[in-house]
Amino acid sequence: MSDGKTGLQLRSLIKKSGELEISLLNVPTPEPGPDEVVVRVEATPINPSDLGLLTGAADLSAVKASGSKGSPVITAKVPEAGMKAMAGRLDESMPVGNEGAGVVIKTGSSDAAKALMGKTVAMIGGAMYAQYRCLKVNECLPLPDGTTPAEGASCFVNPLTALGMTETMRREGHKALVHTAAASNLGQMLNKICLKDGIPLVNIVRSTEQADILRKIGAKHVVDSSSPTFMDDLTGALVETGATLAFDAIGGGRLAGQILTCMEIAANKSAKVYSRYGSTVHKQVYIYGSLDPRPVELNRAFGMAWGVGGWLLFPFLMKIGPVDGKRLRERVVDELKTTFASHYTKVVSLQEALDLSNIAIYAKRSTGEKFLINPNKGG
Amino acid sequence: MSDGKTGLQLRSLIKKSGELEISLLNVPTPEPGPDEVVVRVEATPINPSDLGLLTGAADLSAVKASGSKGSPVITAKVPEAGMKAMAGRLDESMPVGNEGAGVVIKTGSSDAAKALMGKTVAMIGGAMYAQYRCLKVNECLPLPDGTTPAEGASCFVNPLTALGMTETMRREGHKALVHTAAASNLGQMLNKICLKDGIPLVNIVRSTEQADILRKIGAKHVVDSSSPTFMDDLTGALVETGATLAFDAIGGGRLAGQILTCMEIAANKSAKVYSRYGSTVHKQVYIYGSLDPRPVELNRAFGMAWGVGGWLLFPFLMKIGPVDGKRLRERVVDELKTTFASHYTKVVSLQEALDLSNIAIYAKRSTGEKFLINPNKGG
Repeated sequence: MSDGKTGLQLRSLIKKSGELEISLLNVPTPEPGPDEVVVRVEATPINPSDLGLLTGAADLSAVKASGSKGSPVITAKVPEAGMKAMAGRLDESMPVGNEGAGVVIKTGSSDAAKALMGKTVAMIGGAMYAQYRCLKVNECLPLPDGTTPAEGASCFVNPLTALGMTETMRREGHKALVHTAAASNLGQMLNKICLKDGIPLVNIVRSTEQADILRKIGAKHVVDSSSPTFMDDLTGALVETGATLAFDAIGGGRLAGQILTCMEIAANKSAKVYSRYGSTVHKQVYIYGSLDPRPVELNRAFGMAWGVGGWLLFPFLMKIGPVDGKRLRERVVDELKTTFASHYTKVVSLQEALDLSNIAIYAKRSTGEKFLINPNKGG
Repeated sequence: MSDGKTGLQLRSLIKKSGELEISLLNVPTPEPGPDEVVVRVEATPINPSDLGLLTGAADLSAVKASGSKGSPVITAKVPEAGMKAMAGRLDESMPVGNEGAGVVIKTGSSDAAKALMGKTVAMIGGAMYAQYRCLKVNECLPLPDGTTPAEGASCFVNPLTALGMTETMRREGHKALVHTAAASNLGQMLNKICLKDGIPLVNIVRSTEQADILRKIGAKHVVDSSSPTFMDDLTGALVETGATLAFDAIGGGRLAGQILTCMEIAANKSAKVYSRYGSTVHKQVYIYGSLDPRPVELNRAFGMAWGVGGWLLFPFLMKIGPVDGKRLRERVVDELKTTFASHYTKVVSLQEALDLSNIAIYAKRSTGEKFLINPNKGG
């Protein structure tokens, strides 16, 4: 397969019957068009944002393995309640993997394409869990000499999401941020950005171990939601920072509402007259992840000036437009080995990515656990 | 008291001990400043938005009456869980009543004030549950000749809220509306506005009786949330109207999430490719009331392009500015006896407003039940 004419590609299929099937297909590599290149993918991360497509709404507590070692097949059932949200993808075999990096091994006829021959590039656009990926030149980000594919594999999703948070803060008139699941790779990046840019950041974590990780990299405000004094701790940090915007990776449960409640208490500490509708300070939580799939529960003990909504990177990039998008991407490349360095707990092949013991770890979406797939590992 | 030098004023007090006390105080009427007038209040509605201040978070299942017939006192307990939100008003005796109408009986020295002498005016600004109210000329809206205080009592809150919904729809790029508790006075106004302005409106009600009320005034899309086919009915109406913005008076429970879910299903009916993040159509629910005080529960089965937030009339009016605000107020006066006519189930005196049997009715916030206080009734 080293000629790149065919290669393995990971596919996720949810059947009308409710069965999820993940497998590896040997697919022909497309001939690159004039403005396209073929990249040998050497590093592609498993982000929480990939798991939605990879495992869908399947119940992974009873996942099964079959097939052979070289061609494993994973199956699981999607509970009835989860099938409604899957309606759009039923019986369609879908490639997976938002981003990755690798080496250009073949190019189209345009000068822009030819200029990339042999270069290490970062890529965005899906279907990265594959040995080869044919894509447009403008979906590639050439990496500086001396950058490995592993170093460039997570160039887009986490770095641009973290930068998107500080950009959103400025554009919507807030002056400080709150972030949950804050010890994640993304959370650590956000701390580095905020420290560098002088933005006050309140980190919410779920354990003292995670708090320690952040304090070690210089985080000033870290509050632990598992502590009995959580609400008071959070309110104190909000009074100190004036943060009225939160980005929440947890999604389900009471956390988003608790953040709004503490923001409201903090806002009222400076209010002079009682308002029956609560503070007039607008308090916003954007939910960008779903580490907790339960419903969001908002008790509305935070007045009327509030909003909760979904936040996604790609619509955000569309909104800010190409010029500002380019500025953000350039910053990522400039600071790839510092601010935007990613850390992985394990590097696996495509086959190993379908190993039950590995799925059991990465599907948990635990903070700090991050897998990197090298589709050409040992190949 | 007919000289207007002193008059009864309703007060709501929540003590640090957790006791709510509602009573009538005899207070001196302030001397009007140059740009002020004194109005003999003859009609002031009990809106859901007044109940928040009137009864606070008190548990009304064990409300008690004491005092005399002419000077009744109502007491109830605020449960421990509700006291946090009351922190800003503890031990402060607060006047109540957002809006009202009456006759100007005394004026300040300015020409603008003098011009109002003897006129019937609508008023906004709080403390309307009183026999006399001294206020600024610009807080008064002179009513056309032949308009009674009862007809003008609800000039501001409901009419401007209903107009605020259609204004918000246009400003935020939506083309149709959803409204809940839609058979309310406000909901009926909104139907009249939408019919007149050609805006498709999906009405959500909780019974067939309420559906009938709306169909009788010409509502085209009425869905009943108590029906087993509610989700399908709502989706059908959303497909037909293209509504992606809802105003929700209910607040608590699953309704806001159900609306977003049906909007998402409707949006995906026209989508061509599967997106793991759901439709890119932004779906918005603004919660402007709290008929159901339970927490909002959002199961997030509606992709990532969504928002839920609080919506209040006064911040909205601040946002649109004085010119557009004036345009809306002028429309209300022009259509006061048609589009914006209010209907009341009972007219009560201040004393009668503190009668346990009346509290039991208006505190329920039932759709269709609306009380009007005449503080000078029989006086």
